[in-house]
Amino acid sequence: MPLYDDPVDGVRLVPVALERWTGRLLERIGTPTDVAEDVAKILIASDVRGIASHGTARLPQYVTLAESGTMDPTARPVKERHRPALALFDARNGWGHHAGRVAMDDTIERALALGTAMTVVRHSNHFGIAGWYAMRAAEGGLIGAAFTNTSPLVAPTRARIPMLGTNPIAVAAPAGRHGMLVLDMATSTIPRGRIEVAARRGERLLPGWAIGPDGSPAETPEVALEGALQPLGGMEETAGYKGYGLGLIVEVLTGVLGGAAFGPNIIGLFSTEAPSDNGQAFLAIDPSAIDEKGAFEARLERLLDQLTAAPLIPGAPGPVLYPGQPEAERTERSLREGIVIDRQHWRNLQQLGARFAVPLPRPLPLPMPDASPQSA
Amino acid sequence: MPLYDDPVDGVRLVPVALERWTGRLLERIGTPTDVAEDVAKILIASDVRGIASHGTARLPQYVTLAESGTMDPTARPVKERHRPALALFDARNGWGHHAGRVAMDDTIERALALGTAMTVVRHSNHFGIAGWYAMRAAEGGLIGAAFTNTSPLVAPTRARIPMLGTNPIAVAAPAGRHGMLVLDMATSTIPRGRIEVAARRGERLLPGWAIGPDGSPAETPEVALEGALQPLGGMEETAGYKGYGLGLIVEVLTGVLGGAAFGPNIIGLFSTEAPSDNGQAFLAIDPSAIDEKGAFEARLERLLDQLTAAPLIPGAPGPVLYPGQPEAERTERSLREGIVIDRQHWRNLQQLGARFAVPLPRPLPLPMPDASPQSA
Repeated sequence: MPLYDDPVDGVRLVPVALERWTGRLLERIGTPTDVAEDVAKILIASDVRGIASHGTARLPQYVTLAESGTMDPTARPVKERHRPALALFDARNGWGHHAGRVAMDDTIERALALGTAMTVVRHSNHFGIAGWYAMRAAEGGLIGAAFTNTSPLVAPTRARIPMLGTNPIAVAAPAGRHGMLVLDMATSTIPRGRIEVAARRGERLLPGWAIGPDGSPAETPEVALEGALQPLGGMEETAGYKGYGLGLIVEVLTGVLGGAAFGPNIIGLFSTEAPSDNGQAFLAIDPSAIDEKGAFEARLERLLDQLTAAPLIPGAPGPVLYPGQPEAERTERSLREGIVIDRQHWRNLQQLGARFAVPLPRPLPLPMPDASPQSA
Repeated sequence: MPLYDDPVDGVRLVPVALERWTGRLLERIGTPTDVAEDVAKILIASDVRGIASHGTARLPQYVTLAESGTMDPTARPVKERHRPALALFDARNGWGHHAGRVAMDDTIERALALGTAMTVVRHSNHFGIAGWYAMRAAEGGLIGAAFTNTSPLVAPTRARIPMLGTNPIAVAAPAGRHGMLVLDMATSTIPRGRIEVAARRGERLLPGWAIGPDGSPAETPEVALEGALQPLGGMEETAGYKGYGLGLIVEVLTGVLGGAAFGPNIIGLFSTEAPSDNGQAFLAIDPSAIDEKGAFEARLERLLDQLTAAPLIPGAPGPVLYPGQPEAERTERSLREGIVIDRQHWRNLQQLGARFAVPLPRPLPLPMPDASPQSA
């Protein structure tokens, strides 16, 4: 997931206060308290990690989905069919975040007993950052993975139109002194949000990012926004068919396996046209099933030691990182200094607070602009 | 995996005859009959699919490993520790192909009972194409996945030297009328063999393929062969950190989870310096655990129908394909017309046949050169 720089003239909020406010707001639109707590926790985790695109900035859209009846904020997921190591949940068109938390906890419990377990969820909705669910398993010493399909934005290799979502893959593992390894990546080269940023900044696009509506490589964000994203790897000659293949496998493990909507048939996740019926999959693996407790973490710690000490290419913007390292550093700072949201985001939250009579927490004073570099 | 064009002046062989010959040759170097049958079957499956780099062309190297005592051709894998859905095998430094077949069959059996199962193998060796093991599960109606670490060839994002292998990801699933979806991809942009081909042809390299020993992008194959491959996605600005992250996850699921060698610590898989002690992981998922039999295949068939019918970009070299489609077409042709191997490959097999007194099958007459296009 792209890590966004803090806005310079933003509003600074205490994470736990914003989380409490979010939970109360969600209750006002009919969400049961425990469900609202899950959703709030996962949205704030995104903000805290610097993933502004998947946190409380989405609240106006979620509220619209609930108020229009497109999503059912009162629904609870139900386990439909299962064998010991594979279960299917029906999210009943409720909050994707809650269904995901319930499904992942169920997966973890079974993995602790069996060594490995998997769960697929159907009739679900947008569930925020996939990485949160993978981290949930890693916090308990397990390897966790989470996948979701999303509405079509990516053109398969050779295709002119979007047929698959940005279908993220998230995997997390406990890494001893390094905390946690967390890969959370879309299977497109870049997310759509990166093109929107380029449009605002008047930037040109790099090859392999997107194609225009006629199918030729998009050089400007305006053309790209009418066309489609390219899969990881970009064009066919730079192995874009691998990113296409990965996105397709995510589709197979989620929508196709779960009997949810899939591929080009998925309605926009924030559209009020109809429920999005998307699919998610969760996997947990318990290393202690096949080794002494702590041995896996010690080996992963050693590998990350080796990788982060590798000699650098000329002009490297910093040391070799491991996946999740920039987000972990941002989390530490957010917990210490607060989450900084941009003015538009703040105004949107104020409007929701006023409409539902849930007063927003008071912002913290903005400290001096932070000059430390941020990795994207 | 890259699909190689048939050599124009090659030697054409009947697959089943070459498989029988391979099995007999492997027995001569001490491989038990049933183990030799597994290895031969998997090597021929690679040749038949057009993956010349992972089939019988490797026999001289395997023979060297066995004769030097680096690998033990008589060894059989042993299940060391396990819970119902996660097992660890020790391959005891025997044939990776046999250990992989045994581990995948064990995984499939447990997945049929439990819904999902996983196996990790350590003290293993090169196991040929990862796709074979994934396909083994898909042949039985399951989703299969296989992963292996390999000796370091890929430089992590920002690093100047190889620290991770090309660590492939293979996933296969039954797809009704489309046969099987088979993704079998290295997590580098291209395999090292592609650079060797560029060297022979005097080609320049594309950006994102490789770096030279000083860490700057390699423009010629000669510089690249002294340097390192780049992860899928290429440079940092084209999301190469995603390919690096995927390669690292494969490392975590294989060498790190299994307690085998990992990352920069892996000795060349064909080096006689010491056993390679690499790690492999296998996963199987039974869709019928959570749905009516055949429902999953029917949905995947429909998705592949949609993808392959998508409108094309200008100048597309052919229709939208699904992963494994070119290899399936090549398999059909190989079974009908024979496997075509190049002259050097043929001479190497002749030498082995003479040394071990196992006469090679008689080549088929070469038909007119096939003018049909081949996808790579």
